[in-house]
Amino acid sequence: MRPSKRAPDAMRKVTLERAVARYAEGSCLVTFGETKVLCTASLEERGPPWLRGSGKGWVTAEYSMLPRATHERTRREVNSGKPSGRTQEIQRLIGRSLRAVTNLPAIGEKQISIDCDVLQADGGTRTAAITGAWVALHDCFSWMRQRSIISVDPLRDHVAAVSCGVYKGTLVLDLEYVEDSAADTDANFVMTGKGGIVEVQGTAEAEPFSEEQFLELLRLARGGIAELVELQKQTIA
Amino acid sequence: MRPSKRAPDAMRKVTLERAVARYAEGSCLVTFGETKVLCTASLEERGPPWLRGSGKGWVTAEYSMLPRATHERTRREVNSGKPSGRTQEIQRLIGRSLRAVTNLPAIGEKQISIDCDVLQADGGTRTAAITGAWVALHDCFSWMRQRSIISVDPLRDHVAAVSCGVYKGTLVLDLEYVEDSAADTDANFVMTGKGGIVEVQGTAEAEPFSEEQFLELLRLARGGIAELVELQKQTIA
Amino acid sequence: MRPSKRAPDAMRKVTLERAVARYAEGSCLVTFGETKVLCTASLEERGPPWLRGSGKGWVTAEYSMLPRATHERTRREVNSGKPSGRTQEIQRLIGRSLRAVTNLPAIGEKQISIDCDVLQADGGTRTAAITGAWVALHDCFSWMRQRSIISVDPLRDHVAAVSCGVYKGTLVLDLEYVEDSAADTDANFVMTGKGGIVEVQGTAEAEPFSEEQFLELLRLARGGIAELVELQKQTIA
Amino acid sequence: MRPSKRAPDAMRKVTLERAVARYAEGSCLVTFGETKVLCTASLEERGPPWLRGSGKGWVTAEYSMLPRATHERTRREVNSGKPSGRTQEIQRLIGRSLRAVTNLPAIGEKQISIDCDVLQADGGTRTAAITGAWVALHDCFSWMRQRSIISVDPLRDHVAAVSCGVYKGTLVLDLEYVEDSAADTDANFVMTGKGGIVEVQGTAEAEPFSEEQFLELLRLARGGIAELVELQKQTIA
Amino acid sequence: MRPSKRAPDAMRKVTLERAVARYAEGSCLVTFGETKVLCTASLEERGPPWLRGSGKGWVTAEYSMLPRATHERTRREVNSGKPSGRTQEIQRLIGRSLRAVTNLPAIGEKQISIDCDVLQADGGTRTAAITGAWVALHDCFSWMRQRSIISVDPLRDHVAAVSCGVYKGTLVLDLEYVEDSAADTDANFVMTGKGGIVEVQGTAEAEPFSEEQFLELLRLARGGIAELVELQKQTIA
Amino acid sequence: MRPSKRAPDAMRKVTLERAVARYAEGSCLVTFGETKVLCTASLEERGPPWLRGSGKGWVTAEYSMLPRATHERTRREVNSGKPSGRTQEIQRLIGRSLRAVTNLPAIGEKQISIDCDVLQADGGTRTAAITGAWVALHDCFSWMRQRSIISVDPLRDHVAAVSCGVYKGTLVLDLEYVEDSAADTDANFVMTGKGGIVEVQGTAEAEPFSEEQFLELLRLARGGIAELVELQKQTIA
Repeated sequence: MRPSKRAPDAMRKVTLERAVARYAEGSCLVTFGETKVLCTASLEERGPPWLRGSGKGWVTAEYSMLPRATHERTRREVNSGKPSGRTQEIQRLIGRSLRAVTNLPAIGEKQISIDCDVLQADGGTRTAAITGAWVALHDCFSWMRQRSIISVDPLRDHVAAVSCGVYKGTLVLDLEYVEDSAADTDANFVMTGKGGIVEVQGTAEAEPFSEEQFLELLRLARGGIAELVELQKQTIA
Repeated sequence: MRPSKRAPDAMRKVTLERAVARYAEGSCLVTFGETKVLCTASLEERGPPWLRGSGKGWVTAEYSMLPRATHERTRREVNSGKPSGRTQEIQRLIGRSLRAVTNLPAIGEKQISIDCDVLQADGGTRTAAITGAWVALHDCFSWMRQRSIISVDPLRDHVAAVSCGVYKGTLVLDLEYVEDSAADTDANFVMTGKGGIVEVQGTAEAEPFSEEQFLELLRLARGGIAELVELQKQTIA
Repeated sequence: MRPSKRAPDAMRKVTLERAVARYAEGSCLVTFGETKVLCTASLEERGPPWLRGSGKGWVTAEYSMLPRATHERTRREVNSGKPSGRTQEIQRLIGRSLRAVTNLPAIGEKQISIDCDVLQADGGTRTAAITGAWVALHDCFSWMRQRSIISVDPLRDHVAAVSCGVYKGTLVLDLEYVEDSAADTDANFVMTGKGGIVEVQGTAEAEPFSEEQFLELLRLARGGIAELVELQKQTIA
Repeated sequence: MRPSKRAPDAMRKVTLERAVARYAEGSCLVTFGETKVLCTASLEERGPPWLRGSGKGWVTAEYSMLPRATHERTRREVNSGKPSGRTQEIQRLIGRSLRAVTNLPAIGEKQISIDCDVLQADGGTRTAAITGAWVALHDCFSWMRQRSIISVDPLRDHVAAVSCGVYKGTLVLDLEYVEDSAADTDANFVMTGKGGIVEVQGTAEAEPFSEEQFLELLRLARGGIAELVELQKQTIA
Repeated sequence: MRPSKRAPDAMRKVTLERAVARYAEGSCLVTFGETKVLCTASLEERGPPWLRGSGKGWVTAEYSMLPRATHERTRREVNSGKPSGRTQEIQRLIGRSLRAVTNLPAIGEKQISIDCDVLQADGGTRTAAITGAWVALHDCFSWMRQRSIISVDPLRDHVAAVSCGVYKGTLVLDLEYVEDSAADTDANFVMTGKGGIVEVQGTAEAEPFSEEQFLELLRLARGGIAELVELQKQTIA
Repeated sequence: MRPSKRAPDAMRKVTLERAVARYAEGSCLVTFGETKVLCTASLEERGPPWLRGSGKGWVTAEYSMLPRATHERTRREVNSGKPSGRTQEIQRLIGRSLRAVTNLPAIGEKQISIDCDVLQADGGTRTAAITGAWVALHDCFSWMRQRSIISVDPLRDHVAAVSCGVYKGTLVLDLEYVEDSAADTDANFVMTGKGGIVEVQGTAEAEPFSEEQFLELLRLARGGIAELVELQKQTIA
């Protein structure tokens, strides 16, 4: 039995709220249960130097948690002088996931910076971030089209993400914090609206997992992501 | 005429919302018009080393802005390896202001860490932060009293803050961003519920100001802070 | 046709040379074709502070490349003040992989530090590092048993790793640099001697991949890792 | 009674010695009693990048203390990797104070860097620094006029600074270290030769102060600064 | 009696192996007994900014030790955020030594970066590094001449280095680690093939040494360096 | 002919002024012509951790230049986040030189921190620093003996330093900046009062130097250092 009484293949309640940041070109507050992530998309005229002359644009992402997003306060990373390894892994993952569904030449030589700031963390912050960031990016591209900065929509598909894992012997979808911290295996899946796989990350700190278990996790994720993509479609409608 | 049509001595609409962060011992979302700051208070068993054996506690504060809180995206400070001078000035100011109304020995040898994270910035972020942080600190102390961690309320008074300045020749209260960036003189006042002055900071980058002007700014601030303290009282009632 | 004329499911020539570092408790020079990684295992009496009193040990890993391990010289990370995100991802992966097959309480409250330094890089450095690090760790544990520092072997199984990917439309095993830099999809698999999966990382920067493709990559990896485990067994015999 | 037997409104002995640094375009060794600060003004052909094309110049300041300027040796900030918050506050204050009396377009697109290095610290280092830095800046501008780098004097007025505070219940001028460390309230005032206020900073860590007290501190400061400006006039005569 | 039974004026067995790094323009693995240093020379099209327009090139060097090159594991410098003072001293020494025998204008406005990475450390790593780096630099210049990037050989002479010291009262050549850590006096000499002195560094942490002792150390060094230069000549023949 | 008309073996005018820093246990302002260095010695109850239990003390040194000590303003090292390689070399040299004449067990488990801050730089700052630091250290030990913190004088001898070099073909003593920047060879010598050699550093960036030249430089240094030691004796008399 899961702590939340959810069925193994049940997502938490997910919400996507658009236009929550007054100044950003696109923004979305995404919640997966008690996990809350504020995603903004900023159009930046100057991209990285290696973009110049390439004729294409770039989408990059940064991720951070507020110090008291978590049960115990965590130190601000600014005081340690660098983003932690975990933070860097997550922001690279978000960036790659969004670029996988973006037609970069259609942006022109510009950069879209996605900021995902976790206001409250109850597990699944990176998957919520990817799911919400897609909406912020979508709205940023709409903003750009309205102003004729771009002529076609650079988005080729939806992208969303969810975590799965083995919790007390059961394979479950969308782990919250108490499940995640007790899970034997933890996997994150990023997929497109058409069902293509963009990223798979599975880790077993304790017992290795079998191929059968992995395929079942993939099946659970496919179901959850289909729900998320459907919600994205309703949100931007 | 002010851009917002406000009278020179009129505050923006101010709101204080308690208990917005699920895990923090105290929290408050404060808004001064479009400026929004999330304040949390975290009880930390271990204070700074120099506290040990002193028999008293400590209240400290950290301040940060989300990258897209502002009109233009700003770089995360984690990437420059240290908080900027401005950030350090502000977080020292918030900490001193709260300590000025706190009975430190009544906390015991513990530390309360206040985090003020600016979600949206339209001028006056530091004064909003102080005003909201007082509520978060108040609720943290209530939480501690309910659990008998402390026996008396360490708060001796309210504390709140507001900015004033000279905008196009007129002395005005509670500057928003467009006023602030055009102001000749910028002053921040921190006062207690009883009307004592805790901090005064007045700066003239362009023309020096006269003693008369300064006293008028002080009078404006006194009015605004009285309103803020009244709102704090209603909020915690 | 692969640049090296290898069959899609053929590994490069792999060698594992033990005891190559005079002072380390365990060491292994691993080569996957032109990729060469020097792995050392160092017994450190003092582990991280959070280990104290836990009754168990720890295995951690660090990874670095010599500046001219690569076709173009890369800057030393010491000059940028921190390990890059990529470096941190890799060293976390190596550490998790080794811990997954280690009985940590059997080490006692000690730490084994694994250093993987890439002398020459032609693709697959992280997978070579994991494969070689297992041998270094094995020999470090032998050294400890000979000196009665531990009484039983903390290793519960072998662990080895290999990369797979989609190169010019073909699914191939153990990518070398020219394949890797042109691959649509890049996946790394870490498995135990018994065939359990420890880590799966699959990434599609360009086109998403299908579940069928992913399963075929997994099949290729299983074959390669079986060969690597067999070589580890011969090496320590 | 003050430790030094001074009257409440008496400054310490103040001296301003010009041309103490052989290579600097302007320099001044300022002493407020035992506090000694070496101020240099350096003409730099290249100002900050944002100055380019603006047609105006810039005056900036840096501040530091020698490790054994103080009663106890303090660590060099170079070893902590960044200036402390206190150092940054002070150097921003010095820069703003000097710019408030400088006609920036009259400098042209050049930068004057002021360095204030505290050789000995007995309270009031920031106010001594501002007072001495004005002389160094004045002499730098003279040097530039002699070489026809500028045609008019960019200085519009004098600027000087002094501290005041509440020491054992008495309001006193120009606090030395033993007074400063015991003071309830500490305020710094920066004013021009004509009596305009450039900066006011008042802080109450312990008891808040009243408006009446603040006005009396301002009166004390006005008297002290008038003396300092008079001494500046004699010095450059 | 020396721990290794060597005569006071006997070098350890020295080897120089060329072309050990597949991608570098020049490389050499140098061993002085158990000390092993991998030296690579990399041609970099872009030198430091101050080179531009000077018409001459530059040779620079970086030095590092693998963490377990030593008896006890040492922390990676990347984690301390900067190269240690010792590392910086050594890499500056290597760079100066090589430039002393290089005709910099003959390189053109290019930079050769020498990387000296210590794989195993048993004393004398900096002297081994200089000796081996000369071979790597020589081969890099040959590579450039074969591709007509330069037309004449920029090397004007050989350069090699050796350490000497006073070990238990005896003046000895080429100290290994156990001698070095017990030596009263430690000196490093860098000389050219023609016998000119490029660098002399002599240090007495314990007892000062006499002029006579210093001259005898110089005589020992001269003998050792003559052997090293002879070996360099055979290596490149 | 030297720019200053000095004879090749003539020192600049040297002065040593004691007790220039009010709070330090020992201090000395040393001048070699226009080079001015402020040296302080601070007794620190807590030495480095590795001293604990050793029964002996430590002498360490830090070195820095004021930004406008030089002809052109140099950036403060605090802004680059670390002492430069040159700074680290110099402060290690000063520390070693002083320890070479100090009986460390006679200090007890305490540390003396020497700070050498260059107020004005006209060549020879490191040699002036060593010469002045000895006086500061001497006076610190006197202060400790007067308070019975130590019972015997830990100083075993004098130590002083001077530079020599080859300037326009002539071997000269005590180079000033214009000589130093044009010199072919630059050597620093540190010797004791009894004439023992503590440190020798000779560098030829351009032409290597011969043994004969080196011996002549040593002879020049011996003469200069004898004068410096004589002046130290007069100063402390």
